[in-house]
Amino acid sequence: MQKLHIIKIGGTLIDDKKALKAFLAQFSEIEGAKILIHGGGKLAETLAEKLKIRQTMIDGRRITNKKTLKIVTMVYAGRINKNLVAKLQSYGCNAIGFSGADGNLIQAEKRQHPSIDFGFVGDINEKSINHELMINIINLGLVPVFSAITHDKMGNLFNTNADTIAGTIAQALSKYYETELLFCFDKNGVLEDIEDDNSNLKTINRQEFSELKSEGKLHKGILPKLHNAFVAKENGVEKVFLINEKKLSAQIKQGNEGTEICL
Amino acid sequence: MQKLHIIKIGGTLIDDKKALKAFLAQFSEIEGAKILIHGGGKLAETLAEKLKIRQTMIDGRRITNKKTLKIVTMVYAGRINKNLVAKLQSYGCNAIGFSGADGNLIQAEKRQHPSIDFGFVGDINEKSINHELMINIINLGLVPVFSAITHDKMGNLFNTNADTIAGTIAQALSKYYETELLFCFDKNGVLEDIEDDNSNLKTINRQEFSELKSEGKLHKGILPKLHNAFVAKENGVEKVFLINEKKLSAQIKQGNEGTEICL
Repeated sequence: MQKLHIIKIGGTLIDDKKALKAFLAQFSEIEGAKILIHGGGKLAETLAEKLKIRQTMIDGRRITNKKTLKIVTMVYAGRINKNLVAKLQSYGCNAIGFSGADGNLIQAEKRQHPSIDFGFVGDINEKSINHELMINIINLGLVPVFSAITHDKMGNLFNTNADTIAGTIAQALSKYYETELLFCFDKNGVLEDIEDDNSNLKTINRQEFSELKSEGKLHKGILPKLHNAFVAKENGVEKVFLINEKKLSAQIKQGNEGTEICL
Repeated sequence: MQKLHIIKIGGTLIDDKKALKAFLAQFSEIEGAKILIHGGGKLAETLAEKLKIRQTMIDGRRITNKKTLKIVTMVYAGRINKNLVAKLQSYGCNAIGFSGADGNLIQAEKRQHPSIDFGFVGDINEKSINHELMINIINLGLVPVFSAITHDKMGNLFNTNADTIAGTIAQALSKYYETELLFCFDKNGVLEDIEDDNSNLKTINRQEFSELKSEGKLHKGILPKLHNAFVAKENGVEKVFLINEKKLSAQIKQGNEGTEICL
């Protein structure tokens, strides 16, 4: 089977122009099939503030109302996605930007919850992924770049967690490729000591994850990444890592950076 | 040769929710290969006003400065493009949204002018069009939907006239398809009497165009459409029409709406 790298980057990197540039240069150098999935960063929040659009919160959870959906569609699928594509093109990487609506690549369902209406939030699973078209696009020598916007094929766009999109695409494509899923962020992986960036665990399994979590040793932002990482690994993705975005090239070449997810 | 319909819609239609819906239903019904190119509408202007971003004008001509580029990238390539794609998907049309940066589909050059710096405005010609990838995408059964954002393959995005994009794509693809280019707008075509929407000319050639223009009988908004229409026709596009967006289906079925461009 052909190798496929699926790489997720987050908002902190997107907000840091210099670090982003260095990352994209590294990403462009990866040989073979690859997919980039990006989060949002502070741009959407800043724009919402400028436009005086208030965040709706219910029971401490963020709701994507109509106005917020418009903002994230503009910022994620427009400004960030197209700038990433243009920058990658300048590095000779034949990037092509998508939302989940494009070519019906990711078809979500509005989040169902017994008491909270999350608004325009879409949930996805392996069946949401149009793997056939993704494979066709990759076979054309293109590098898909996904924003975290999906749709329901009934004309509605949705906000979907970018970590979940990365994990779910990896899961769906792991039947057709030898798939490596890399969650990139600004830490060296899962840290034993949250204060020491060199204390990254080489590997982590479900039990160790549960222990660290119950001991309160994990910082909040890493939880959705780890959750999606374990789901992907348990559903057939060959290799899953949490790595520092600065060490992408080293990871691709030597494979010993960050924290590897184990069964 | 296979038939290809290339259809351009403008801002007035995009701003009219009900008319847009009716148009997209008609567009979805067109059989065979097709491409949609869309303009911007008032959304970008409204957003710029809300954000207090001033339009820069030099010698009465609009300049696309950095802030304006950010706005149009968000609005055209994000909000409008993704909403059009999601709506078309709901009508069973397998739409896929692009800017010119995606897959290097349209590579522009920054506009050169002896005295005015237009900012982030990109000019294109037939060589700018990545016809090979467009054909591959159409062969996958997909329907490309283009926003009027291009790039220079050096990391910069540009604002490019949507009529020009439509005409230039048609020109580039007319070697591979029996191409019909339709500029849709809110008039019945080129009107002999600007006050009478039923006075549309059945055909128009360069000489008639020049005469009407010099007599001041054409409204301003139609000039770039007619210019791009004649360039396309003179460069090999089989059929070129200016039609009323409400009459798309009738035009596709009977072919006798609007004004046909003649050599």
